[in-house]
Amino acid sequence: MARSDGELILVAGGAGFIGSHLTLRLLSEGHQVLCLDNLQTARSSNLRLLEGRPGFRFVEGDIVNPLPTAVTEQAHRITRIYNLACAASPPQYQADPEHTMLTNVVGTHHLLRLAEQARARFLLTSTSEVYGDPEVHPQREDYRGSTSCTGPRACYDEGKRAAEALTFDYARMNRAEVRVARIFNTYGPNMHPDDGRVVSNLICQALSDRPITIYGDGSQTRSFCYVSDLVDGLIRLMESDIDGTEPVNLGNPLELTVGDLADRIVAMTGTRNALVHRPLPQDDPRRRRPDITRARDLLGWSPRVSLDEGLAKTCAWFAEELAVEREAVAAE
Amino acid sequence: MARSDGELILVAGGAGFIGSHLTLRLLSEGHQVLCLDNLQTARSSNLRLLEGRPGFRFVEGDIVNPLPTAVTEQAHRITRIYNLACAASPPQYQADPEHTMLTNVVGTHHLLRLAEQARARFLLTSTSEVYGDPEVHPQREDYRGSTSCTGPRACYDEGKRAAEALTFDYARMNRAEVRVARIFNTYGPNMHPDDGRVVSNLICQALSDRPITIYGDGSQTRSFCYVSDLVDGLIRLMESDIDGTEPVNLGNPLELTVGDLADRIVAMTGTRNALVHRPLPQDDPRRRRPDITRARDLLGWSPRVSLDEGLAKTCAWFAEELAVEREAVAAE
Repeated sequence: MARSDGELILVAGGAGFIGSHLTLRLLSEGHQVLCLDNLQTARSSNLRLLEGRPGFRFVEGDIVNPLPTAVTEQAHRITRIYNLACAASPPQYQADPEHTMLTNVVGTHHLLRLAEQARARFLLTSTSEVYGDPEVHPQREDYRGSTSCTGPRACYDEGKRAAEALTFDYARMNRAEVRVARIFNTYGPNMHPDDGRVVSNLICQALSDRPITIYGDGSQTRSFCYVSDLVDGLIRLMESDIDGTEPVNLGNPLELTVGDLADRIVAMTGTRNALVHRPLPQDDPRRRRPDITRARDLLGWSPRVSLDEGLAKTCAWFAEELAVEREAVAAE
Repeated sequence: MARSDGELILVAGGAGFIGSHLTLRLLSEGHQVLCLDNLQTARSSNLRLLEGRPGFRFVEGDIVNPLPTAVTEQAHRITRIYNLACAASPPQYQADPEHTMLTNVVGTHHLLRLAEQARARFLLTSTSEVYGDPEVHPQREDYRGSTSCTGPRACYDEGKRAAEALTFDYARMNRAEVRVARIFNTYGPNMHPDDGRVVSNLICQALSDRPITIYGDGSQTRSFCYVSDLVDGLIRLMESDIDGTEPVNLGNPLELTVGDLADRIVAMTGTRNALVHRPLPQDDPRRRRPDITRARDLLGWSPRVSLDEGLAKTCAWFAEELAVEREAVAAE
């Protein structure tokens, strides 16, 4: 349902993987969207998908800095703020851990202040990483998690935990209406081919002539949610009238091993590339599966896209992307 | 051992409870100390104890803001930075949770940047609160903890976890030499009578005509370290040549119930005030005891002041403080 012309939705990180899908969906519903992105991990092709669409406006900026005037001068029109701004794959967020921590804490703080000033509802995209390497399975929202605050994943995991704390304090003090989503692994078109996440890694390897890498013995599990389902969950959460003082898991409860995922992608692509094993990174979680009872009960949400359907769409999209890249290289 | 005249130690939070003891000790060893404090929870009497002493200089400022010029212009002289700046008792740090989070993350960040610029060694005073309500007993440094990132203690607990993450990232990236102490309950003179912590609460109640309050049934345990022992541990940690990429617990491993503590204070003061029970605050930890093997092995440190000796000194100090307060009220 489209809002009146004056209303505006701010999507921080709107040119990223999930952000670009969310922005497209909001635009398709007739909303005006202000996309704030530092283009750190966003692909320029994501931005090209968005630019020129009615209702879309892009502002380049980093939420660790005071928000750009192009955003703050629109505060009176902003009714919703989605915070999706942070590199989410370990190689990317570990490249500059200081910036990752500040993005989560200082960036979230800047957006919360804007939400308070604008009386806009604020949604933080938190993460299943707040559960760390979980000892409880599946993970419910009241599980406190097992994260390391001393290791190389801490800039992201502890940063998101701190961002949640700050967000819930804004709610407790009646300074802003808030929603917190804990997003589990998500995949689909618009991912970065080199972002180092398992689905994009495996598909890109299978579609090229590189060996298929499995970290550890492949017995670690993950649960993969197709991006359109995830975006649907985010919008439902934002627009629901639930009490926002509790986080909500969003993810696909179908759990499979990384080895099983690789087998499916090998079968789907028909690759004959070799499989190679690499050591597990430090603090890599062994199991991950969301308990989505809360999302089901409160939002009437559950994922609809099957893994095979989602993987087929994602493989088709990557095949096209890699073909475009090859043509570009050949033309040089 | 005194340093050369040019060298300077920065103590952020140096007018607070532990900070004032640390500063006094450093001054008594012949060091020059720059004390940076926002006077949020510091007592003016602490500051009066320090002012006028040779080598002492006070700068009023809040580490959530860019550091004052009076500090940054001394960067070339600063060789050590102790960060003790944050309200530490729940009523105090929960009064402004946003400020608590920013003190821990943004404040620590400002001091780490200064440490990098000054090539000074940086010590973060983290806390046993990073263990939350622990399921493992006693708490070793490699226990990941059980904190809630959604509750009212999160601004402090998750803020300190994030501050640790940032500090260890500075070490991993060779941007600063760091030390991280996880401080367990500490008590002694210079505590704030109204800071809401159990030792000061019980002693001040026993020494006045107020009822002695026990939260819950008093069976929750704590371990109390006398402040001179703690300060000794902080200085040893700062000056040791250990690999700084791991935190070190500092606390007294003698564990007792809050009920037992109350009994000792009642016996020591001879109070006949009534005992009253109040509900336990949300997320109050049930047990706390440090495993100090690491501090023993690496620093040769363990507490020396017995509980009875420390409590006697603390009671004597509070008796004098309360007498001064009563005289001041009577004279008005």
